[in-house]
Formats: sequence, C-alpha cells, structure tokens
Amino acid sequence: MKKAVFYHAGCPVCVQAEDTVAKSLDAGRFDVEFVHLGEERSRIDEAEKLGVESVPALVIDGQPFHINFGASMKDVRG
Amino acid sequence: MKKAVFYHAGCPVCVQAEDTVAKSLDAGRFDVEFVHLGEERSRIDEAEKLGVESVPALVIDGQPFHINFGASMKDVRG
Repeated sequence: MKKAVFYHAGCPVCVQAEDTVAKSLDAGRFDVEFVHLGEERSRIDEAEKLGVESVPALVIDGQPFHINFGASMKDVRG
Repeated sequence: MKKAVFYHAGCPVCVQAEDTVAKSLDAGRFDVEFVHLGEERSRIDEAEKLGVESVPALVIDGQPFHINFGASMKDVRG
C-alpha cells in the first residue's frame, strides 16, 4: 500500500480537487491522508519540505502534484 | 463507470503525472483515456473547450484539473 497525502486549505478549489481527484485514487493501492493545513498548521513545514508550493496538492511517493491553484503556501502560512 | 481524460504532450512533467496520478485512479470506477495532443492535434480544440489551459491536465466529469505545469496550450498548439 502506497501512501498519498492530500494537502489543502478548505478552499473551493481544494474541495473540488479532493472530491474529484484525491478521492478517485485506487483505495486498493493507496492509503490517502487528507491534511487541512489551516487546521493542522504544524504540518505546513512538512508540506513545504515535500515541495508543496500551493494548495491543493497531492503528494504521492514523495512527489508533489499541484492540482489547479487555490492558494500559495505563503497565503496558507498567513 | 466514469470517464476521465488525461491530456498531455509527452513532456517530462506530463509523464510523471501520467505514471503517478492518472494511472493511480481507481480502474473500477474510471475509464481513463490518455491523449497525446502532440500526436492527436485534432483534439486540441476539444481540450480547450473543456477548459484545459496547460498540460498535463486530467478532465473528470467535465472538470479540468491541471497537474503541475508542463506546457501551455499555446505552446502545444505551436
């Protein structure tokens, strides 16, 4: 089982990507964790270290995939 | 079965998104078509009508999701 992490900030673009892309991954192959960076601010550093520059972003196998554009990490950090 | 279309142009960013994201969709729920716009140029109009602005992009349920950035549609059109 591979690990995938979906980082978001609750924005409309994030919700659309979560519902339509992140939740469409094969649950038989991926264990998907959903992280709301506005609520779990202690994980902002972790996301940035993984290369996340904006949300929503999906990290699979350590590779960041930015899906459309909701907010920059600078805005998430506030 | 829902239809998903992954539009790309064979670029490195496209290949990475294809291998890691598009091929990770649940095959039990999605019928994923892979379209290389450099080879199937007649489908560029279709992609743009669906809202695709750059590749790689994944269209699910008529909603375009741009995954990272490989090339603009303007560059694809050439």
